[in-house]
Amino acid sequence: MQFNYHIPTRILFGPGKLAELSTEKLPGKKALIVITGGKSMKANGYLERVVELLKKNDVQSVVFDKIMPNPILRHVMEGAELARKEQCDFVIGLGGGSSIDSAKSIAVMAKNEGDYWDYIGGGTGKGKPVTGGVLPIVAITTTAGTGTEADPWTVITHEERNEKIGFGIPETFPVLSIVDPELMLTVPPKLTAYQGFDAFFHAAEGVIAKIATPVSDIYALKSIELINTYLPTAVANGQDIDARTNVALANTLSGFVESTSSCTSEHSLEHALSAYYPELPHGAGLIILSEAYFSFFAEKVPDRLVMMAKAMGKSTDGVEESKQPYLFVEALVELQEKCGVRNLKLSDYGIKKEDIPKFAKNAFETMGFLFTLDRYKLSMDDVITIFTKAYK
Amino acid sequence: MQFNYHIPTRILFGPGKLAELSTEKLPGKKALIVITGGKSMKANGYLERVVELLKKNDVQSVVFDKIMPNPILRHVMEGAELARKEQCDFVIGLGGGSSIDSAKSIAVMAKNEGDYWDYIGGGTGKGKPVTGGVLPIVAITTTAGTGTEADPWTVITHEERNEKIGFGIPETFPVLSIVDPELMLTVPPKLTAYQGFDAFFHAAEGVIAKIATPVSDIYALKSIELINTYLPTAVANGQDIDARTNVALANTLSGFVESTSSCTSEHSLEHALSAYYPELPHGAGLIILSEAYFSFFAEKVPDRLVMMAKAMGKSTDGVEESKQPYLFVEALVELQEKCGVRNLKLSDYGIKKEDIPKFAKNAFETMGFLFTLDRYKLSMDDVITIFTKAYK
Ligand SMILES: [Fe+2]
Ligand SMILES: [Fe+2]
Repeated sequence: MQFNYHIPTRILFGPGKLAELSTEKLPGKKALIVITGGKSMKANGYLERVVELLKKNDVQSVVFDKIMPNPILRHVMEGAELARKEQCDFVIGLGGGSSIDSAKSIAVMAKNEGDYWDYIGGGTGKGKPVTGGVLPIVAITTTAGTGTEADPWTVITHEERNEKIGFGIPETFPVLSIVDPELMLTVPPKLTAYQGFDAFFHAAEGVIAKIATPVSDIYALKSIELINTYLPTAVANGQDIDARTNVALANTLSGFVESTSSCTSEHSLEHALSAYYPELPHGAGLIILSEAYFSFFAEKVPDRLVMMAKAMGKSTDGVEESKQPYLFVEALVELQEKCGVRNLKLSDYGIKKEDIPKFAKNAFETMGFLFTLDRYKLSMDDVITIFTKAYK
Repeated sequence: MQFNYHIPTRILFGPGKLAELSTEKLPGKKALIVITGGKSMKANGYLERVVELLKKNDVQSVVFDKIMPNPILRHVMEGAELARKEQCDFVIGLGGGSSIDSAKSIAVMAKNEGDYWDYIGGGTGKGKPVTGGVLPIVAITTTAGTGTEADPWTVITHEERNEKIGFGIPETFPVLSIVDPELMLTVPPKLTAYQGFDAFFHAAEGVIAKIATPVSDIYALKSIELINTYLPTAVANGQDIDARTNVALANTLSGFVESTSSCTSEHSLEHALSAYYPELPHGAGLIILSEAYFSFFAEKVPDRLVMMAKAMGKSTDGVEESKQPYLFVEALVELQEKCGVRNLKLSDYGIKKEDIPKFAKNAFETMGFLFTLDRYKLSMDDVITIFTKAYK
C-alpha cells in the first residue's frame, strides 16, 4: 500500500457560501472571469453577483464569455491573450466544468509561450513541461458534474484534430473553490441527470482503477451512495436544496477521487464519441456506455463491483457469488430509470454503428493512458465489443 | 450543511516511502531537523538516513535534539533561535508528535518576534496574530499517534504555568509529510497502544464534535474501523508491516479529522492531567478517561455512538434502541482489553483523587474552546463526575 496524496484546494462548501467571495482572501487584485457563451450566467444574475462580490473585496474583473459546452483550444488561447493584455492576477472559472476547465487551461497559457497543445501529453500533443508557472485559479461551480473544483484536471478539445484530451499539473488545482448548491437550483432536469452521472462514473471508475487506494475508495463509495440516494430527487425537483446539496457534495467527493485515483477507459471511450459528436453531452455518452462497460468488468473485478453495489444499498445475502458483481449493474440501471435517462441512444445523436472501429481507434490514440489504469487490459476487440453492446 | 475544507499537505504514504526524500522537491537548501532528546532517532539510524537522503537532494541540515515527550515552550524558543542563527530555509520534524509539533512551533517562532506564548489563544496566551510568515514544515513520522502530519495543530506545554495548549494556522500544515510504516516497526507495544488510541480518540471525538461534516465522518469512521481491526496485531507483533501500515493510515486519516472536525472536551480533560503530570502519556490519559467520557455522551449523542459502534463491527440487530449507543462503549472496552491497556490507573501515576477539582478548572481555563464544540455543554460538575468515574 503506497500512494501520494495532495489536494491543496481550499473549498467553501454549502448553501449561501458564495457570499464569502467578498471577504475571502483572494490571490490578486484583478481577475479574469471565464464563463460560457450561453445566457445562463448572465440571466441568472450569477455573473453580476460575482462581479459585485469581487468589488467589495477590492478586486477588479474582466469577463471572457465565449466558452462552449465542449471547450475548444482556440478559446483557451483567446482567453489567455485577454488575461495577459489585461494583466490579470488570477483566473476565475464560473459555471460548470467547461468554464472551470477553460479557466485552468487559460491560467496555464497566460504564463507560458507557444500553443496549448504543445503541453498536452496525449494524441498529437507535444508533452512539453510547463515552466512558466500558472496563474492562480478560483472555481465557482454552478453545476454538480465534473468535480473539477476539487481536482487538477481540465479537458479541452482540439476541433480540427478531433482530439478531446485531459491535462493537469499540481498548479492547476484551484487555490480556492466555492461550491454553493443555491447556484445549482436552476439546472434543468436532463442536465442535472447527465452531470450527476458524470460524477457517479468518476467515482465508480475510481473504484475499479488499478491505482485506487483506501482513501480514494472512501471518497468514491460515499459519492456513489449520495448520488444513488439524492440524484433522483434532484432531477425530479430541482428546487430541493437538500438533494442539490448532497449531489454537490457527491460531486466534490468525486473530484477528490479524480485527485487520488483516476478515471478508467470508460472515459476514453466517451471522449472518442464526443470528439466526433460534440453535441453528445459527456454525461449522456457515459450513461449510454455504462451498462455494457461495467458488465464487461463484472467478471474482471467482481470484488470492486460488489463494494459499489453495497454502497448503493444492495444486499448480497443469498445471492450466488458469481452473480454478486451484477448487483452493481442492476443498481446502475435502476438509478438510470429513476433519473429518466434509461432511453438514451447513440443513434439519436446521429452516431453510426459502422463508425465504431473509428471511435475505438481514437479512444486508444487520444486517451490511451487511461487504459493502462484498468485492472484488466482491454484489447481493441474488447473496446469494439463494448461499443457494439452499448449501441442502440 | 456548510463547511470549509483545506488540507494542503502533500503526503507520501507507504512502506519504503522515506527513500523519496532524496528526490522529492523540498522547500529550500538548508533544513533544521527537530528530534527528541531520547536515543531512538540516532540508535535506529533514522537521523543518519534522513541526513544522507537530504544530502543526495542537495540539502544541508542542522540538528536540534532536545525535544521532550511533552514538548515545552523553552525548547521551541531555543530551536527557533538555532533556525535563525543557521539561516535554515525549512524545518523538518522527525519522530513522533512531540518532534513534529515542536517543528511547527519552531517554524513559527523562526519568523516572528517575541515569545511563542504571545501567539497562543488559550490560558495566559496573548492571542496575537502571526504576521511574519512561517518557515515551511516537513513532517517525517516514526509513530502512529497524533495525526500531526496531516493537520495544522501543535501542542506545547508552558511548564511554569501548567498550561498545555494547542495552536494552529494554515501555515502550520506541513507542506510535505512522509508516512513510512517501516520507521514504526520498532515502537514498543505499550507506546504503540497509547499512540494508536490517541489516533482513535481524534477520530471518535471528531465524530461527536458539533462541527463534524459528512467528509470528516468518512475519515473518522474509516480510521476507527482500521484501528479496531489492526491495532491489536500491531501491539502484539510490532514487526507486522501490514498491521503497522493500516494503523499508520488510520492515524493519517485521524489527522484529516483534526483538519476537518475537531477534538472535543475529552482532550481538554486529558491535557489538564498531563499538564500537572507530564509523565502520564497523553494516550494513556485518554484511555483512562474514555469509558466514563463516552458513557456520559451515550445518551447525549446516541446516533453518533451507534455509527461508531457499527464501524467497529457491532450489530444493532435485536438491541433495544436505548442500549445501542453503549455498544460503542462495549467495543471500546474490548479494544482496550485486546491491546492490553485495560488496567491503566491514574493512581499509578501518582495522581490524587482530591485534585480532581483542580484538573476540572484547568481543563476549562486552558482548553475551554473544545467544550464549545461538544454537542452537549458540560458543566464543571459534569467534568468532575467524569473524572471521578474514571478515577482508579
Ligand atoms: Fe467525466
Ligand atoms: Fe491527542
